[in-house]
Amino acid sequence: MRDAYHEDLDSLTDKLVEMTRLVRSAISRATTALLDADLPLAESVISHDEEIDRIFADVEESIYELMARQQPVAIDLRMVITALRMGTDLERMGDLAEHVAKVARLRHPESAIPPEIRSTILQMGQIAENLVTKAGACVASRDVEAAKELEADDDAMDRLHRRLFKEILHKDWKHGVEPAIDITLIGRYYERYADHAVRVAGDVIYLVTGSRTA
Amino acid sequence: MRDAYHEDLDSLTDKLVEMTRLVRSAISRATTALLDADLPLAESVISHDEEIDRIFADVEESIYELMARQQPVAIDLRMVITALRMGTDLERMGDLAEHVAKVARLRHPESAIPPEIRSTILQMGQIAENLVTKAGACVASRDVEAAKELEADDDAMDRLHRRLFKEILHKDWKHGVEPAIDITLIGRYYERYADHAVRVAGDVIYLVTGSRTA
Repeated sequence: MRDAYHEDLDSLTDKLVEMTRLVRSAISRATTALLDADLPLAESVISHDEEIDRIFADVEESIYELMARQQPVAIDLRMVITALRMGTDLERMGDLAEHVAKVARLRHPESAIPPEIRSTILQMGQIAENLVTKAGACVASRDVEAAKELEADDDAMDRLHRRLFKEILHKDWKHGVEPAIDITLIGRYYERYADHAVRVAGDVIYLVTGSRTA
Repeated sequence: MRDAYHEDLDSLTDKLVEMTRLVRSAISRATTALLDADLPLAESVISHDEEIDRIFADVEESIYELMARQQPVAIDLRMVITALRMGTDLERMGDLAEHVAKVARLRHPESAIPPEIRSTILQMGQIAENLVTKAGACVASRDVEAAKELEADDDAMDRLHRRLFKEILHKDWKHGVEPAIDITLIGRYYERYADHAVRVAGDVIYLVTGSRTA
């Protein structure tokens, strides 16, 4: 049987996995809201960000309590330190999904995304979801090999991000400056979301191996 | 006389203050490089980011050592935890300054900034410098009242950020889409830089008071 201390550490992992689930749902719904100009869906992403913030506050509090009470060492110490970093990244991913939803809300009833860009944005959304799903699985399983794979998926996001700029700067671009600004920001939000997911996986590698350069 | 343990904690503070000094210099030089289309200056910001990363790696290592060896409690525990958060924010501020410098480099020998936007960018750069200078002073002095002031300065950054969008979207904007994209990204970099500086000050408040909502 696990003692109370290790139950606390397990519960910390559970909360982080729950955060990955919520920020995955947030970016998924934000992408749909953006592409379909779906205002209620955008509003739901914006209002649900509080839930992510609340779980993070809970994670932080558990960490401070654990450290003060238990003075963890070695891998347990790495666990609480990386939990704090992961929580910070996941909380930020929630914010970025919220930013995407806010652009959808701002442009409603229009869609912020012209037809010729939709496929790129959809793919960016799918890679973002894929990255955070994998990151969540890595947090739960502490699978270092799986964690290393996220770098490659992030390269796909960077390629789409570059394609997005090419599309906005194409000579046939006829939508003017305002949609270009929206899409520049949206592209940045997806790219940063992906970066944070990769950092979460990197923290799993550090947690297991004790090294940042595995 | 301070014992070795407290000397270690003091040295942690010194390194964080040094980071604020370096990221202040980075954003200052990046702003000048951007406005003057100064390639060597842009290159120097880009190559010096490694130094910031190195100090942060050093901060991280000291923190893990301190925690493993000393098992700090109460305010000392808050010190190491907040040092990790501050270091993460400052490292990111270095990256953001580097991003600004990279736009300057990309557009050289042109300036990425059209004449009518220069004054807004200059002011954003000055507020960014001002914020990180104040944040550094707060880290050194642990002055909670001074730390609270940063929120108000950040409001000024948000106002300039909104003005920037207004300028790009003005009917007289004649520079087309590419400079609009550059300026959108640059605006975002300054705004995020300021947010991270405010977070550093927020961590000083937490460090001293033990509460995030002081």
